[in-house]
Order: sequence, then structure tokens, then C-alpha cells
Amino acid sequence: MSDWFTLRWSEDGVVLLDQRQLPREEVYLTLDSVEEIARAIESLAVRGAPAIGCAAALGLARAACLSAAQDLEALRSDLEAAATRLARTRPTAVNLFWALERMGALAERALAEPHASVESVRGSLVAAAQEILAEDVRVCRAIGQAGLPLVPEGASILTHCNAGALATAGYGTALGVVRAAFEAGRKVRVLADETRPFFQGARLTAWELQRDGIPVTVITDNMAAHLMRRAEIDLVVVGADRIAANGDVANKIGTYGLAVLAREHGIPFYVAAPISTLDLATPCGDAIPIEERGRAEVAEILSQPIVPEGVPVRHPAFDITPARLVTAVVTERGLARAPYALSLAKLSGLSR
Amino acid sequence: MSDWFTLRWSEDGVVLLDQRQLPREEVYLTLDSVEEIARAIESLAVRGAPAIGCAAALGLARAACLSAAQDLEALRSDLEAAATRLARTRPTAVNLFWALERMGALAERALAEPHASVESVRGSLVAAAQEILAEDVRVCRAIGQAGLPLVPEGASILTHCNAGALATAGYGTALGVVRAAFEAGRKVRVLADETRPFFQGARLTAWELQRDGIPVTVITDNMAAHLMRRAEIDLVVVGADRIAANGDVANKIGTYGLAVLAREHGIPFYVAAPISTLDLATPCGDAIPIEERGRAEVAEILSQPIVPEGVPVRHPAFDITPARLVTAVVTERGLARAPYALSLAKLSGLSR
Repeated sequence: MSDWFTLRWSEDGVVLLDQRQLPREEVYLTLDSVEEIARAIESLAVRGAPAIGCAAALGLARAACLSAAQDLEALRSDLEAAATRLARTRPTAVNLFWALERMGALAERALAEPHASVESVRGSLVAAAQEILAEDVRVCRAIGQAGLPLVPEGASILTHCNAGALATAGYGTALGVVRAAFEAGRKVRVLADETRPFFQGARLTAWELQRDGIPVTVITDNMAAHLMRRAEIDLVVVGADRIAANGDVANKIGTYGLAVLAREHGIPFYVAAPISTLDLATPCGDAIPIEERGRAEVAEILSQPIVPEGVPVRHPAFDITPARLVTAVVTERGLARAPYALSLAKLSGLSR
Repeated sequence: MSDWFTLRWSEDGVVLLDQRQLPREEVYLTLDSVEEIARAIESLAVRGAPAIGCAAALGLARAACLSAAQDLEALRSDLEAAATRLARTRPTAVNLFWALERMGALAERALAEPHASVESVRGSLVAAAQEILAEDVRVCRAIGQAGLPLVPEGASILTHCNAGALATAGYGTALGVVRAAFEAGRKVRVLADETRPFFQGARLTAWELQRDGIPVTVITDNMAAHLMRRAEIDLVVVGADRIAANGDVANKIGTYGLAVLAREHGIPFYVAAPISTLDLATPCGDAIPIEERGRAEVAEILSQPIVPEGVPVRHPAFDITPARLVTAVVTERGLARAPYALSLAKLSGLSR
């Protein structure tokens, strides 16, 4: 993983690997304005709940640097406008709002300091955004360690979408568990659902695991049940975009179906996510907003129509997996198991 | 459906709509040799269990017409070679073998007739192949009528792959049930799984239903569970490539997962297929050979790589749905329900 990165701060802007172009090309974008950063999130140049949070944090830091404000009030106003724009990008992943709130609170503290200046607030925000990225990698490594006991020697691990280094500042959540097992010397292999419509599994999970030398095989989403029936899958581990207080999980469309299938076949179903993905203010999954995206991502591939013109499509980007189907939630503070209302609240309340 | 057809006999060869090019282009291929017909089946220019059977029947008739045999023994030998080649095309759909056996038995009778000649056998085979096509359409219409009582007014019907006019000589099996309901004036709408990797749902089911003015919406395969959970699907109806004596069903990869999901949500799961899809000589689904197809159909789309080079894929083209998950099998002779060992044997034994 040393020869590439998902996103990072630079003096020239926010630099990120354009995930729309993988695996065909490795192109790094340098995004100057908040608007460009917001559009990169909306268009899936960067995606994955923790990475979206990191991108938003970098976006606010960028807004501070670009601001022409001469005084603190003007700077606060510019930061609020930037936060509003970034918050509008995608509704489901709660890490976006978590990062914006954390950066906002930090900005308020910096603005309120005795000798605060536009320059000092800028410096605080740039440092804070970079710390959010560094922390995200540490958190992912801790998730990997927490999940390690769940992965038997020789396991075939099914994952959906990409909850890897590309979905975080590095290392990954679901793929963090895989990496931890691999680094511990366990012979594991990954089956990656291709994950229609955006092919995060086929394009991204396959790409980053191949880069790390971890055995990976791609399947279409509709093959998982068949392989489970043939006992070719030992466990499922996925990421999450938001986890409600009762343990219901919002994640990439298709996750819920996999959870039902895993239960049917007696296969453990794990959700790996940082504490920042918990949303204890949302009581249950049905209260989580599900983003509906546009027609083209389903109806066209590489700009070629797959669906006849005039035929409508549906495009819910996420679904809700009820807590009863989740064997455990793997966080950087350890595992949560049912009843989740208790276990998640307890993990959330632990100090780091 | 009057302005297009799936396949038909002509003096110049077997004419079929190239399903690889739909929905972008409507191209009819005229296939001269048995080898061309076999390759059209292998490459999915024509697909769907009943249509494969029809194509094989037309192929044998074509072999008779092309044969340079001067006597009946030489003709028999040419026909056997053609049947052997056609039987090698695809292993799972039993209609292929059913059609070849039916044509072979007819050839034997024609060869054994008192005044048999190369010409008379040719004529018999051409007539028999055309009758198999005509019968297939009648059978599909009867399947539609048998399934009609299963479709409530206003139903949202999920289907997988294409078990429509394009999978038969016309009208369809699963889509025959939809067409019968639509023609009976019921307001129905179809949700079509796109059906990776070949997109039979997005490309073919959407195309033929749009042509008939039947409302259809395309979803990716991994959306079905989410829509079931939201009570947006009233019933599932799919076709079959082979049905074992105990009622286990081989059908397009992804069917089994849908059946599990339908059961989980209390949604009826119907299999619509002609009696020729029954294989009472095969005791159960695990004895049905599952075709494994090549990498490119999964790893590339429109000749562009989706999966990184060097990353393997899996490609089982079919899966097995155990009989316990099938609410009813809809045939041209009526419905079969559990216990299927009895009900299927009974339907199979009925005279037409």
C-alpha cells in the first residue's frame, strides 16, 4: 500500500485517487475549491463512509485556506457555507456529518481562543483535518485487530462493495479485518461481490487486494447464494454507512440480501465500522435516509446503454440490514453483539 | 410482438434475432451450417431453454437439408454427427436434449418408413422442427393461462433473467404468465432483475416488454431484497433450464438467492416452464450439471475490463433452487405443487 493512497492534504488542494477510473487508470485529482471537492464526493471519485468524512474534513480545511476573510466573523461565515455545501453531497453515510461537526466544533474553539486570528484558525483546521485522516488509519488497524479472532485459518471471506483502504484514509474496515488476518499469517481468500451498479467490488476491492497480494476472486452479486449453498463461504464481512442505535445497518445496496442469505446458510455476518459510523441519535434503520441516485449509473455502462431507452430503473444506493441478522459489529473499541442497543451504547461511551 | 421474432426456419438457413446485440441493434442472423447454429447457441446469440431446444431442432432439420448423402445410412450418419455437435453446446438446459431426442426419434421413424428416401426424411425433419416451434408458442400460451390465477390485479411481479418470447419460440414462460395477466386486463408491472453477467433482464426482458407496452422497471440483482422488505414485490416468477424429479429447479444464476429471499418475505415464488423442461430421469438438483462459462463475460463489459487483469472470477451460469422454496411450478398442463415427486410425475404422464 506504500505506492498509492486514497486521499491526502497538500498545499495545492485536496489530492485524491479518482476511483471512477480504477482499475483502468490510476489518476490523482488535485481539487482546488470546496465545490470541486463536493462534486468529487457526489460523483463517487471518492466514496466509502470514512473516506467521505475525511474528504469533507479536508474540504473544510481547504475552505479555511481559500477564504479571503479579513476577520473572524467573515471566516466563520465562509466555513459555514462550505460545511453546508459539503453536507449536501450525500445523505446516508453519517461519517460525513460526524466529520463536519467535529471540524465545526474545532473551528468554534479556535475562533474563540484569546489571540485567535484568521491565520491561527486556518492552521488549526488544516492540522485537525490531517489528524482525522491519521486517526482513521489507526482506527482501521484497531478494527482489524478486533476482528482478527473472527477469521479462521483458511477462511473464504465474502465481502460486498469496497470497505477497504479506498473507502477510508487507509487499511480499510471490512478489508482491515482481512488485512489483519493476512498479516497474521492466516491463509485467507476473499470473494468480492462485483457490486452493481458502480462495481466497487470488481473494480476497487479486487484492485487494492491484488496490490497487497491478498488472494481475491470476483463474483457477480447474484452468485453469493449459490456459493454459500456449496459451503464455499465461511464468513461475510462488510462495512457500513451508518449504524442506528438498535444495531440496524445502512450499507451498500445488496448488503441486506447477503445478510438474509448468510443467516439461511448458518454463516456469520459481520459489520466492520468505526465508532464514527454509529448514529445513536437515529433509533432504527427505517429512520436512516436512503440515497436514490440517478438512472445512468444503472442503465449505462461506460456510457453505453444496457437498458433500452425509455425503460425506467430504480436506484436505491443503500439498504438496511436489521440488527437481528448481524452476528457482530467490529469496531476499533472491540466487538458489539446483540442486544445492540446496550452494546453499541457502551462502546460509544468508552473513552479512546 | 408481430414485428419481430426470436427464431424461424427459412430455406436459406436458420434465422434468429441476435440477442447479444439487443437492445442497441435488432440484427437477424441467417445461419447456414450446423456449426454456425451450434456457435450461436454457445455464444448466447440465442438462449433460453425452450429457444435452445427450438434452435437445435432447426439445426437438425438444416443438417438434413445440407447433407450430401445419397442413401439413408449416410443421412443417418450425418444427422448423428449434427446431433452430437448440437448436444455439446450447453449442458444445463434439458430442452436441448429433449428436442434432439424428439427429432432423432422422428428421424428414425422416417428412415424406417417403407418408401423412405433422403428427400422424404428431409421433409419430415423440416416439418417436425417447424412444428416444435409452433407447439412451443402454444405451450407458452397455455402456461400463461395456467398461471393467470396466480397474478392478482395490480401485482408487482419480479422476474430474473429472460424467460420471455426471446427465450422461446414466442410468448414466453415466466413472461407468458405476465402477458396472460396483461391481456386479461390486469394492471401489472414487472420488475426485471438486470441479471449479471449477460444482462438478460436489462437488455432482453426490458426490450420485449417495452415492445408489448407492458410496464417494466429494471433493477440491479442486488436490489430485490430491499424492495421485498419494502413490500414492493407481490410475487416472483422465473423460468427454468431443468426441473428434476423432486422439483429442484436449475435456472439462471441468482434464482436460488431470490427464492430464499422470497421465502424470507412471505412472497410466492413460481417457476413457469413447459413439460419439456422436466427431467424425471434426474432425481434431484445436485445431479444437474451446472455450466461454468468463461471469464470474459464477468470480467469485461462491451470489451472493456471491469475486473483488474490477473484477478480471477467465478462464472457458474446456473444455480439450483431446492423444491421446498418453490410455491408452484406452472406448466402447460396446469400447476404442480409440493410434493413435487408426485405432482410432476402426474403432469408428465398426462396426455396432451
